[in-house]
Amino acid sequence: MRIELLYDMPRLEEKIMIEALRASGVDVVLTNVDTRPLVIGEAESDLSLVRVVSMQKALYSATIRESSGTRAMNSSLTLMLCGDKILTLSKINSVGLRVPKTTVMLSPEPAELVFRQFPKPFVDKPPVGSWGRMVTLVRDLATWRSIVEHRSMMQSQQLRTHVIQEYVEGLGRDIRAIVIGSEFIGAVHRISSGDEWRTNVALGGKTAPLKADGEFVEMSLKAAEAVKGDFISVDILEDREGRLYLNEVNGVPEFKGFMEATGINVGELFVKYALRVAKR
Amino acid sequence: MRIELLYDMPRLEEKIMIEALRASGVDVVLTNVDTRPLVIGEAESDLSLVRVVSMQKALYSATIRESSGTRAMNSSLTLMLCGDKILTLSKINSVGLRVPKTTVMLSPEPAELVFRQFPKPFVDKPPVGSWGRMVTLVRDLATWRSIVEHRSMMQSQQLRTHVIQEYVEGLGRDIRAIVIGSEFIGAVHRISSGDEWRTNVALGGKTAPLKADGEFVEMSLKAAEAVKGDFISVDILEDREGRLYLNEVNGVPEFKGFMEATGINVGELFVKYALRVAKR
Amino acid sequence: MRIELLYDMPRLEEKIMIEALRASGVDVVLTNVDTRPLVIGEAESDLSLVRVVSMQKALYSATIRESSGTRAMNSSLTLMLCGDKILTLSKINSVGLRVPKTTVMLSPEPAELVFRQFPKPFVDKPPVGSWGRMVTLVRDLATWRSIVEHRSMMQSQQLRTHVIQEYVEGLGRDIRAIVIGSEFIGAVHRISSGDEWRTNVALGGKTAPLKADGEFVEMSLKAAEAVKGDFISVDILEDREGRLYLNEVNGVPEFKGFMEATGINVGELFVKYALRVAKR
Amino acid sequence: MRIELLYDMPRLEEKIMIEALRASGVDVVLTNVDTRPLVIGEAESDLSLVRVVSMQKALYSATIRESSGTRAMNSSLTLMLCGDKILTLSKINSVGLRVPKTTVMLSPEPAELVFRQFPKPFVDKPPVGSWGRMVTLVRDLATWRSIVEHRSMMQSQQLRTHVIQEYVEGLGRDIRAIVIGSEFIGAVHRISSGDEWRTNVALGGKTAPLKADGEFVEMSLKAAEAVKGDFISVDILEDREGRLYLNEVNGVPEFKGFMEATGINVGELFVKYALRVAKR
Repeated sequence: MRIELLYDMPRLEEKIMIEALRASGVDVVLTNVDTRPLVIGEAESDLSLVRVVSMQKALYSATIRESSGTRAMNSSLTLMLCGDKILTLSKINSVGLRVPKTTVMLSPEPAELVFRQFPKPFVDKPPVGSWGRMVTLVRDLATWRSIVEHRSMMQSQQLRTHVIQEYVEGLGRDIRAIVIGSEFIGAVHRISSGDEWRTNVALGGKTAPLKADGEFVEMSLKAAEAVKGDFISVDILEDREGRLYLNEVNGVPEFKGFMEATGINVGELFVKYALRVAKR
Repeated sequence: MRIELLYDMPRLEEKIMIEALRASGVDVVLTNVDTRPLVIGEAESDLSLVRVVSMQKALYSATIRESSGTRAMNSSLTLMLCGDKILTLSKINSVGLRVPKTTVMLSPEPAELVFRQFPKPFVDKPPVGSWGRMVTLVRDLATWRSIVEHRSMMQSQQLRTHVIQEYVEGLGRDIRAIVIGSEFIGAVHRISSGDEWRTNVALGGKTAPLKADGEFVEMSLKAAEAVKGDFISVDILEDREGRLYLNEVNGVPEFKGFMEATGINVGELFVKYALRVAKR
Repeated sequence: MRIELLYDMPRLEEKIMIEALRASGVDVVLTNVDTRPLVIGEAESDLSLVRVVSMQKALYSATIRESSGTRAMNSSLTLMLCGDKILTLSKINSVGLRVPKTTVMLSPEPAELVFRQFPKPFVDKPPVGSWGRMVTLVRDLATWRSIVEHRSMMQSQQLRTHVIQEYVEGLGRDIRAIVIGSEFIGAVHRISSGDEWRTNVALGGKTAPLKADGEFVEMSLKAAEAVKGDFISVDILEDREGRLYLNEVNGVPEFKGFMEATGINVGELFVKYALRVAKR
Repeated sequence: MRIELLYDMPRLEEKIMIEALRASGVDVVLTNVDTRPLVIGEAESDLSLVRVVSMQKALYSATIRESSGTRAMNSSLTLMLCGDKILTLSKINSVGLRVPKTTVMLSPEPAELVFRQFPKPFVDKPPVGSWGRMVTLVRDLATWRSIVEHRSMMQSQQLRTHVIQEYVEGLGRDIRAIVIGSEFIGAVHRISSGDEWRTNVALGGKTAPLKADGEFVEMSLKAAEAVKGDFISVDILEDREGRLYLNEVNGVPEFKGFMEATGINVGELFVKYALRVAKR
């Protein structure tokens, strides 16, 4: 059996997976999608694990492998849905999970209207992007106008699009949980740091383990099912009344901080799952 | 019953549909997605017809309507698959239809390798874009290097991605066919004009009716099924030996030229189909 | 004698000039720089008036006309200096005029340092751009980080550059004055409107006439001399103690609002000046 | 005496200069313009050497240092003129030096007209950019249309602008000469390599020494004078009849290949010149 791992910038996560794959005895093919052209209809393996950091490249890698009948993990469908926050939130909402109140603005025209109607402060972000980049907490009209002017200069329609969300003000932390197959693997709190309201680890956020007990377990599993994910992480917000909101699903999860906080070897668990699927 | 038509720049196509909807007696809601914010989880109608020219905005419009359980036509899945040529070709290839030999380059690095390996001339294009824009017939290395340098300056990863295809040199024409539901509506030849090798009507291509008889009928229906399209048009290339290649599927079809060439009122047929679906 | 007027989007200003030129009896050549290629070394006239809205196109138009020895008005030197706020402020400061305290950040790296050191609120803007676009009043670190993240996504280095200025909090108004040749033509107050702190007319700012009496007259003349301008407008800020700060110089002045507020026909005055220069 | 060297990415060139400055006994201040904010009106030294690779950042560094009366080398004027090929060619042409026949297109509109009128093949490039990037030899209309479509997608007006030049077909080589102060330092041939018609060293071009004897010496000196350069390199094309064309002037010259080919220590010569000027 041959298993391919597709990557662009190998991180600790990918190194753990490669080691686990090699230890299992299968043939491992490593494909750097930045240096290798990908041919539609050509298979390299029985199963392709998509571990590409660039979300657009990850999606293309998965769909091209699927074009020849190879199973990609995550599938192109999952990567499409998780690679864009509007697609994720719409899908999650359609299966009945609670999401933050969200309005989408496809052009700058209704900016003033949106500002008047939406409770302040609100969160504004583009539908694509990682690590909290360009996520803005908008408190006043002057800031809002400036953000809208900046975004209208972007070349891509995705970056020109505004995802406007109610600010779920909790306790400066959110929940990140991991699901593999239909199994809940674990969860952590991500806690924002210092003068930064965003909780992203890339922005200094800290990670603390969280007992896998509560509504968030079921929410995570339901979210994974909604996006048909093999291996996903979810971000869940909690307001001061303890209500939970499913906000993002990641189709190429990072888990270094999660591993450190929980001691769970996520990379190995994923490889075991992948091998089980491949052997069916 | 209420039917919503979502639009940005209303063309003849949309005007025909609006008239047909009004004539049918249903409530018609017209939503300009550039001036109206779209709210996740909010429904405006029983059925939403997505006629937005910008492919990214069309996709967002569809998925947001679906988030509240409303049926969008085409669905967000169809618009996703048809809005990106790599996703389309991969899906089409996976169901066994013949597509032009296609290689994808996600970064400029393998450019020289691709040039050496691919038969010349070849076609290069980004995975997104309409009306033949940026589609290049590459004959020599100097042109190829220049195109790769230009594309590497783009902000969006989609425009930095290269779809490289064999040049299916036929008789200066291709086939455009329209499918509604699972019914084949008709087909035309698009014939390139003067010194322009591309057949796009926006580039001066002419349209001539074509009898709905031959392999392309079945190919069109199979392609529509592959992308789960309610209303799509397909582009089919024909080489000098008469072999057909499914190359593109459009999820928000233009049909002005098609109507003129065939006399078929596509807008009315689509509205009739939509009403049948809505009444189920 | 032939006089050329170079334009892209003719406004009231250009129409007034064209009329005045025609009334004077000279040959008038109108050149739309968007539709006419410009040839280095080719002259169209004895004098070229540069009235192109796009600053980059205005600069190119002027320098190409000068390449054949033709006088351009404003000259390419003036348009270069006025087309970029960093060049303007540096030149103005070098001749001893007071400018707002200004720091320039060429990359996002020193963003946190700049925030700590600069008094809040401060003004952030790119060195290019008109009508107040992307000019932001930064009050808090979260907004600052968001603006820096947005700007780092821009393709052009000019838009990625930050001009950071002390906020000269006055009485919600600034002075706009016009100089032709070495003559002071007049001045107005521009008064910000409603909830918008910027005074730009494009953002709802109002205009009121101002007696040509005070320090700002000398400042305007000195600024015009510094940038070697034939026809410029200047923006002067006034703080609560009445201190004046020269902030911007415009090399292709708009003067519709100025005309309405003062009754001075700026267009005719400029044409008279241009004819005098041309006849020398 | 204090001398500042402004840089972003220190190359061999900058290292040689720093060593020579230190050996001379002056105080040396090294300023990384990417990490240090630059303050208008603040001086760091008696003289500032601008060795910043990014042309836009180089220009900003020079003008900000000049704002406090400090001499920058090259001056902001020189960097402005040399940083944009349209400004350079216009200035060079205005002093009577031969340049390749050049037409400028500020928008895509006259593309077909330009193609019909200009002898083929012609060279197309944007007015900014180094190392031959995006320089295209256009032979046919299809390639031309594709290049114009690509460029019209760029965010910056500079990259959307087309500099169209006659193709000076010589012997696959051009002349690069260096001038410091008003002294001619030397010249080399740059010879294009393999299947690449551009001679840029970054594209594999080779360098061979050239005797400082001939028309190109006077041309180089006149070009340096035209742009008021302290330290510049020039690119001179030669056609098959031996006619020379001044094509580009570089305001932050690279000279590694030149040094290797000629044995002339350009960095030391420049530092000596700078010290002489500073001591005046």
